Amino acid sequence: KLRPVSMSDVKLTDGFWSPRLDKLVNVTLPTMYNLLEETGRIDNFRVVSGRVKGGFRGILFNDSDVYKWIEATAWALVNRRNDQLIKVLNDVVDIVAEAQLPDGYINTYFYHRLGERYRYLRQSHELYCAGHLIQAAVACRRSGVCVRLYNVALRLGNHIVDVINPSGLLAVDGHPEVEMAMVELYRESGDKRFLEEAVFQIESRGRGVLRNFRMPGSWDAGDEYFIDHKPLKDLREVPTGVHAVRFLYLMSGATDVVMETGDKALWEALSNLWVDLTGTRMYVTGGVGSRHEGEAIGEPYELPNDRAYSETCAAVANVMWNYRMLLATGDAKYADIMELALYNAALAGISLDGKSYFYVNPLANRGWHRRQPWFDVACCPPNIARLIASLPGYIYSTSSDGVWIHLYIASEAKVNLNGGIVELKVNTDYPWDGEVKVTVNPSKEDEFTIYLRIPGWSRGGKLLINGVEQGVELKPSTYLGVKRTWRSGDEVILRIPMSIELIASHPHVLANTARVAIKRGPLVYCLEQVDNPGVDVWDIVLKRTCRLEAKYVENLLNGVVVIEGEAYELRSQGELYKSLNDIRLSLRSIKFRAIPYYAWANRDPGPMTVWVPLIDYYGG
Amino acid sequence: KLRPVSMSDVKLTDGFWSPRLDKLVNVTLPTMYNLLEETGRIDNFRVVSGRVKGGFRGILFNDSDVYKWIEATAWALVNRRNDQLIKVLNDVVDIVAEAQLPDGYINTYFYHRLGERYRYLRQSHELYCAGHLIQAAVACRRSGVCVRLYNVALRLGNHIVDVINPSGLLAVDGHPEVEMAMVELYRESGDKRFLEEAVFQIESRGRGVLRNFRMPGSWDAGDEYFIDHKPLKDLREVPTGVHAVRFLYLMSGATDVVMETGDKALWEALSNLWVDLTGTRMYVTGGVGSRHEGEAIGEPYELPNDRAYSETCAAVANVMWNYRMLLATGDAKYADIMELALYNAALAGISLDGKSYFYVNPLANRGWHRRQPWFDVACCPPNIARLIASLPGYIYSTSSDGVWIHLYIASEAKVNLNGGIVELKVNTDYPWDGEVKVTVNPSKEDEFTIYLRIPGWSRGGKLLINGVEQGVELKPSTYLGVKRTWRSGDEVILRIPMSIELIASHPHVLANTARVAIKRGPLVYCLEQVDNPGVDVWDIVLKRTCRLEAKYVENLLNGVVVIEGEAYELRSQGELYKSLNDIRLSLRSIKFRAIPYYAWANRDPGPMTVWVPLIDYYGG
Repeated sequence: KLRPVSMSDVKLTDGFWSPRLDKLVNVTLPTMYNLLEETGRIDNFRVVSGRVKGGFRGILFNDSDVYKWIEATAWALVNRRNDQLIKVLNDVVDIVAEAQLPDGYINTYFYHRLGERYRYLRQSHELYCAGHLIQAAVACRRSGVCVRLYNVALRLGNHIVDVINPSGLLAVDGHPEVEMAMVELYRESGDKRFLEEAVFQIESRGRGVLRNFRMPGSWDAGDEYFIDHKPLKDLREVPTGVHAVRFLYLMSGATDVVMETGDKALWEALSNLWVDLTGTRMYVTGGVGSRHEGEAIGEPYELPNDRAYSETCAAVANVMWNYRMLLATGDAKYADIMELALYNAALAGISLDGKSYFYVNPLANRGWHRRQPWFDVACCPPNIARLIASLPGYIYSTSSDGVWIHLYIASEAKVNLNGGIVELKVNTDYPWDGEVKVTVNPSKEDEFTIYLRIPGWSRGGKLLINGVEQGVELKPSTYLGVKRTWRSGDEVILRIPMSIELIASHPHVLANTARVAIKRGPLVYCLEQVDNPGVDVWDIVLKRTCRLEAKYVENLLNGVVVIEGEAYELRSQGELYKSLNDIRLSLRSIKFRAIPYYAWANRDPGPMTVWVPLIDYYGG
Repeated sequence: KLRPVSMSDVKLTDGFWSPRLDKLVNVTLPTMYNLLEETGRIDNFRVVSGRVKGGFRGILFNDSDVYKWIEATAWALVNRRNDQLIKVLNDVVDIVAEAQLPDGYINTYFYHRLGERYRYLRQSHELYCAGHLIQAAVACRRSGVCVRLYNVALRLGNHIVDVINPSGLLAVDGHPEVEMAMVELYRESGDKRFLEEAVFQIESRGRGVLRNFRMPGSWDAGDEYFIDHKPLKDLREVPTGVHAVRFLYLMSGATDVVMETGDKALWEALSNLWVDLTGTRMYVTGGVGSRHEGEAIGEPYELPNDRAYSETCAAVANVMWNYRMLLATGDAKYADIMELALYNAALAGISLDGKSYFYVNPLANRGWHRRQPWFDVACCPPNIARLIASLPGYIYSTSSDGVWIHLYIASEAKVNLNGGIVELKVNTDYPWDGEVKVTVNPSKEDEFTIYLRIPGWSRGGKLLINGVEQGVELKPSTYLGVKRTWRSGDEVILRIPMSIELIASHPHVLANTARVAIKRGPLVYCLEQVDNPGVDVWDIVLKRTCRLEAKYVENLLNGVVVIEGEAYELRSQGELYKSLNDIRLSLRSIKFRAIPYYAWANRDPGPMTVWVPLIDYYGG
């Protein structure tokens, strides 16, 4: 239904994401490249081409980290020219290209055991790695910074299509990913066989086919974990115990397939699964996956805070899936979740200095959980990098009748519409302020619609066109279509108040009984110890009457709106269990400060919590 | 400080445990024997002795299930004569004995790979299995039903001592257990070398020695998991992430060592670890181990209810450890935890029909968690069996000056004291009622002390001697020593009121915010769906003013005291997250029933919860 606007036609001018894109290019991607070298991930490719002697180093899916770095770098370079990084990128691509085998196969782990190729797909991640290579190649080609990886991807894609197909090997990968990649390769090349391969992967899954591809001696979590217990079209609920990232990558790939095929049964399943996931198994931050055990999604309402897994990759994948659902429908509910996961669960995955990462994103902690510069399983760092790098592509879309604005990020865009070009200039201090000014400059006077997203979190608000307030209701979680004949210089102002909201959970979320989360606009807040001296933030409680206010603090955490106000310190007993009759609870009046969740753990370590007890939760 | 009273001198006459002992002998142990046969666990021994052809079946520590069954059966037969079971026991012991190798080693898994003997102790469980054989042999000998296993144990013990010692192999087992066994073997044989071996095991641990004994390709959880990161004497806190059963077995063995050696530094460590465990990381049921991941103990106050692991084996081990700490000190705080874990976390591990078991014991569930007849890793079923079988041994002790009563279970005991025999007859309806009558019949008039445990949960109460109320205060969590010259027929009555208590947690137990658990006497209660039609028990909330009453229901769950009373159904919103301002909470007055936690999941499946929201938790 919606078509993306090319990233090269979007220029960020904002104060929130632009500095992050700068940091990505100047800090994150170069340091990540060094780590790829230090950990042997790039040498693994050099070993295959004979430029370095040795064997494979690391874990069998390490190639994918290199590919995700390539993808992130390619996207980042679209809007941030950096000759040094372009050179490094091209060198890495050359090294990768040289490791491709004559038949198109490329995998630096299985190169050393070619007899095992495609035999252990339950655990081997071969198509997963291939998918990341293809996505990287598409990014390189679209960005124009390094087009020759595309040929490698085409050869690899053709190889996969030749081997794994209805009359060939009946196989899927234990870790979905190649589905998205194949659809993209189809879009880029126009070659229908790649789309058919994606359809074949989606259709073949869920029939226990992975049982034939078990790697001896490797850990195995059961068919649900791999979403191989039931065909996707038969799923109505998220399988409890499914690996969160596997699930969300599969959903993303299936949504890509639906966009190209219009498969109604598949859409039905996706639609139901989305309702179940976001309605019963998602953190208030947009994070997904509540279990450390198996990095898995738990039961409905199983959402512990201290033991949240909420992997950064799953948050990134949640953004990716919802973006695709949004493109397929134009339904604002998907944009709401996309925005939520982006600004909270995903963004928390990277430090403010751009050099360290969370794999796990708890919503409460005693202070020991800190971001790390790298991981043995290093999926998350390049994943959050490629999300930030590609963010300009998430802001706008077009449909046959107009332009859509999904994310309010100050930026300039050139949009092709019905043969003409419309320039849009968005000004806003989002996510700190809900006023958005859109200046419209069509290349010629033309009638079309500008679809403005009215966020699900909004309450009230106004629309002004050329300074004149319009008598329209801003309905939360919809797109407001402003249809008119646009002239150069027309100005639309969306004035959405950002109030501080206390959020409560479904009562079956046992972890959040009588607790509230503080939210303002798209941002979820947390209480961090360093801002609240003299009281353990785990002992801070609120009352409904506590006055809270939002305040922008420029020199804090690169500039954030904090929430400050009245609260109480709960003074209680020190024993683990005690008869209620023997406990004397007392409250001490205090002031507290909350910061955006994404910014926690960037200063002195200490306790943190998102959900705060509300002592008159039930009405007092 | 205290000495056990032999099980053969204690006869249960009560209505709570006696039927369980009957069921153990008539149902549990025979069905378990059949499962040991069906799953090849006994055939594994027959294969070694050549009576059956084939290889090893199952998991490498399966021998221990057979040994624990032998131990349970031997203890059970002390008070429940059953010729059929005696015959089966003797047959099994013969089969085991025939599998011992000439040098004393016995292990049906490593028999097939003798070159790997003692090479992979980090994961091999060889000393763990050996320890269970030794404990089984001691049980058989003490019970008198099958003494010849003792020789097998002696030969095995000698073999271990010969191989693993300060001038031999420096090794410990990844799974503690042999420490307890070696102390018992020393007590039984008087051979100091067995005690020295136990000391050597305790002293060698915590120095990373297990890193030299890693089994290739097997899952590995890090040194803390194995308690091999730090010497035991240097531990002041329970290591977060330690395997719960490994930890508690090690504590039990170390306490056995302290009892024999008086090692002060070791006692200091045990004492501190006990405070940390029971004061910050134990469920209200006495269960231990909050993480599914690694079956491990979590951080302080990390005690989720729905995702509680609380393995049955860990509860059994918690009883075992606290019993040992009690023997070492006579301190009632250990008896409190022993009783708590026994009546709640451990007892929940077996169904009322004696044929199915919980491995995991959640404190809240939606109804899918059900007891199973068996497990591939079948540690829990025979573990709860041996605990119940040996329970008569936990009731009484003696010290130099008198008799101690730890658990109030109607029974008759013959106690050797200063050369005389004291007959004690305990009458009580415990755990349903707190009145305990002790009739004392010394073989000759004599002055000594009867130490009566005043439970930690008690409030107030009276002591009567020969009908006359004594003006003594019953201080909770102490032993009340009644010293006098006892004559035949003297009668002591302890009248401890069992009131219904609402228990609250330390505020850092995030799972229990604004929730209470219902307790009466030693029993923790839960709300189970089948007793509360018309309302989801997860939606039931209490107020401080709700009237609750206890009522014995004879034809329910083999006879239980239920707790009934007023409560409310919380009617709330159906969304996962919603602004507090948009939520209309309402309460509907209802009646509810709670049953003892140990008895849940014996009827129709449905939601269950131990911790119930208290809507005026903070005082209203």
